[in-house]
Amino acid sequence: MVPAIDISLVHDLAAELGDFIRIPSVSSDPRRREDCRRAAIWLRDRLEAAGASPARLIETELHPAVFAHFPGPAGAPTVLVYGHYDVQPATASAWSSPPFEPEIREGRVYGRGSSDDKGNVLLPLAAVRAILAGGSSLGIGLKFLIEGEEEIGSPHLDALLAEHRKLFACDAAFCADGGMFGEDACSIAISARGGFVFRLWIKGPASDTHSGLVGGAVRNPIHELSDAIAGLHDREGRVAVEGFYDHVRPLESEERLELARLPFDEVRFVADYGRLHGESEYSVPERIGARPALDVISFHGGGGGGGGDDGVSAVVPSRAWATIMCRTVADQDPWVIRELVKQHIRRMMPEGLAFGFEEKDCFWDYRVPEGLPALGSAIKALEQIYGVKPLLCRDGGGLPLRRFQDNLGVSPVIFAFSRDSEGCHGYDEHFPLDGMRLGLASWTRLFQILGNARPTGDRL
Amino acid sequence: MVPAIDISLVHDLAAELGDFIRIPSVSSDPRRREDCRRAAIWLRDRLEAAGASPARLIETELHPAVFAHFPGPAGAPTVLVYGHYDVQPATASAWSSPPFEPEIREGRVYGRGSSDDKGNVLLPLAAVRAILAGGSSLGIGLKFLIEGEEEIGSPHLDALLAEHRKLFACDAAFCADGGMFGEDACSIAISARGGFVFRLWIKGPASDTHSGLVGGAVRNPIHELSDAIAGLHDREGRVAVEGFYDHVRPLESEERLELARLPFDEVRFVADYGRLHGESEYSVPERIGARPALDVISFHGGGGGGGGDDGVSAVVPSRAWATIMCRTVADQDPWVIRELVKQHIRRMMPEGLAFGFEEKDCFWDYRVPEGLPALGSAIKALEQIYGVKPLLCRDGGGLPLRRFQDNLGVSPVIFAFSRDSEGCHGYDEHFPLDGMRLGLASWTRLFQILGNARPTGDRL
Repeated sequence: MVPAIDISLVHDLAAELGDFIRIPSVSSDPRRREDCRRAAIWLRDRLEAAGASPARLIETELHPAVFAHFPGPAGAPTVLVYGHYDVQPATASAWSSPPFEPEIREGRVYGRGSSDDKGNVLLPLAAVRAILAGGSSLGIGLKFLIEGEEEIGSPHLDALLAEHRKLFACDAAFCADGGMFGEDACSIAISARGGFVFRLWIKGPASDTHSGLVGGAVRNPIHELSDAIAGLHDREGRVAVEGFYDHVRPLESEERLELARLPFDEVRFVADYGRLHGESEYSVPERIGARPALDVISFHGGGGGGGGDDGVSAVVPSRAWATIMCRTVADQDPWVIRELVKQHIRRMMPEGLAFGFEEKDCFWDYRVPEGLPALGSAIKALEQIYGVKPLLCRDGGGLPLRRFQDNLGVSPVIFAFSRDSEGCHGYDEHFPLDGMRLGLASWTRLFQILGNARPTGDRL
Repeated sequence: MVPAIDISLVHDLAAELGDFIRIPSVSSDPRRREDCRRAAIWLRDRLEAAGASPARLIETELHPAVFAHFPGPAGAPTVLVYGHYDVQPATASAWSSPPFEPEIREGRVYGRGSSDDKGNVLLPLAAVRAILAGGSSLGIGLKFLIEGEEEIGSPHLDALLAEHRKLFACDAAFCADGGMFGEDACSIAISARGGFVFRLWIKGPASDTHSGLVGGAVRNPIHELSDAIAGLHDREGRVAVEGFYDHVRPLESEERLELARLPFDEVRFVADYGRLHGESEYSVPERIGARPALDVISFHGGGGGGGGDDGVSAVVPSRAWATIMCRTVADQDPWVIRELVKQHIRRMMPEGLAFGFEEKDCFWDYRVPEGLPALGSAIKALEQIYGVKPLLCRDGGGLPLRRFQDNLGVSPVIFAFSRDSEGCHGYDEHFPLDGMRLGLASWTRLFQILGNARPTGDRL
């Protein structure tokens, strides 16, 4: 049953992924706007070359999305694949090889976006090519919607979906973003956390001021910001914001059993990430997948942000700022939680201190509905390729999938092949050739299963 | 009595200061090492052109010092002028004009180092030239020692002074670094704070890790560092380190009266630097001049240190670090206080957290001995130029003057013309032409007073 994946296909795919990585499509960086467009055009051209008709860009207020359609036989179900071509920023100095100059080392493609999400996005495209090259037809209508703003919270995805409901109409959807639990187990994520990001800034002296001139007599914004951040958690790492956990849906015993089946390797986890922290009454897979978290993802004040000694002046700086990211779960309303966090910070601030918030994205958590036929197809495909039934896991990151439910009435199934250790968002991001092989085989099998399904027009 | 300072002299001096500023002699930046040497050579050449013999560089392990000698008549006293040619780093984006491209606007020379300390260093040189150009002789032997490592804590000054005791031998010394109290009053600083700088780093995950993968289950080094920084002060801004204030010499009532005479403008201070903070039982001039302080001068974790949105990734960063600067006063031993601060931090750290210290400079506070004849000469010079008796103030910054006492047995008098508002260490640093005029006149008068003093060989 398992389709024989020609290893040369994997090597071709790795080379193609290298070309994709070489376009630094950092969506958060205004200087990379043209690169984002280049990445979109590159992808459109690959989809077109594979036979999509049409394959085109759809403009948004910022970075264009790529849409492609492989029409299916009359009456065949239509399947939508979602992913993103944009990537996180990358500080080259921390990388073993330049982030936008892909390198294959030890069976892995290194480069920003290799795992999140360029590698995952190319898998279904390669699967389509493999099927069509073999002389088969897809047996389904297949649409690709690959956006360029996922790493900045998909600010225009809602409008895009709402405006083009007919274009994106489908019977089932799959999200080619996310990944599997741990390093080895075959698994499929049935939920993703929601959340929000905002910046908190605190103002001190009108300009950076020699610490000898004012030290000991004025508020130092770094001290004040540290106080505020310190007040967000208790010593055990629980979020100290009043009401934060109030609406978290308690885990049912069945769900806990499900998560307990995951092969969590505590020794390795601690070696990679440091000692366990947080809500000790929950296991780590529970904490990450089914419990909320509040993390400061950046804090800056004073010079020397590059990490060297250069640039650190003996000043009380005029400003300090932090970027705070929350990961919410069902049934937290991230907009409500954001207000609670801000209220908490406001209450902690001493009188007369100038501070403010800048809100970034805010998005819902997501849950694949139980018993969804497309989930069954995905599980079947993975089981046939991996030879074991996939475990059900939770994605601790965010995926904008609630927007597909809201606008298209379809619940995407997360079908992705990244692993925790692949450096997503961090440095030395990579995607293993073996993961690509399994991913390519799994997508191929998924399309075959979907294509063989009787074209009833029902949801798959 | 007041020497008529030709205004064209001030304009020439401003142009000369511009040339000096154009050499970006940032001593803390390894990439500026050659620029530091260029600044030293430039200054040596100016001293030589003014008639010094010899004028030469003296090598240290890092940046060379400049030495120059204007020999005096036999039996005349020898006076040493100390200052520095190195400058603090400058982040161009915060400046109204590029920091190393000097600009004269509204009667001020703008540029990094204009006030600290290049402007102050050129004043005595210009005074020498003015006297010699007028056909007079100095009547004293005059030595210049202008170092290039003051902004990094003068790490080689001790060795330099110890090794060249004979070369630097003098009867009196003046420090052309520091400044006057406030914006208008004529004053002279009789002390400077000591202190130390160290970096505290905290380690989290082995590499920056997607916050969705670990958020809520691991220690975030930004949170931990915020906790540590928050624990350094109480809510009123007092240093919370046990024993920190134990050896602070209490202010005598006479000293408090002396400081109360300074025209402290609270409205302006608050407008420039924010609300008053710290030890409320002390006035601001007392807090800054005669009480210790502990300030975090930089804090960094996560991306986006440049201040923009670009570079902030949704990660739990692998590292956060802060640079902590202490300002000590008599009779605190900065080495002992540093250990107390580190002990305090160690005690606060949770078990199993990886953290460490990197020690930078550590230096004593300084006090001009009461009744020092050279202080009398300085006061007399200022009184004659400003028309009022200078008030006695305290410099809240650090000056490496204890090292002159230790190595040469001479106590330098602080004779400098910077003002608090001139952006030293911050941005838009400037030196007003009027300050240059008064400074040039004051140095000229000081040299005249010193030259007229009977050459007894006694300390001036």
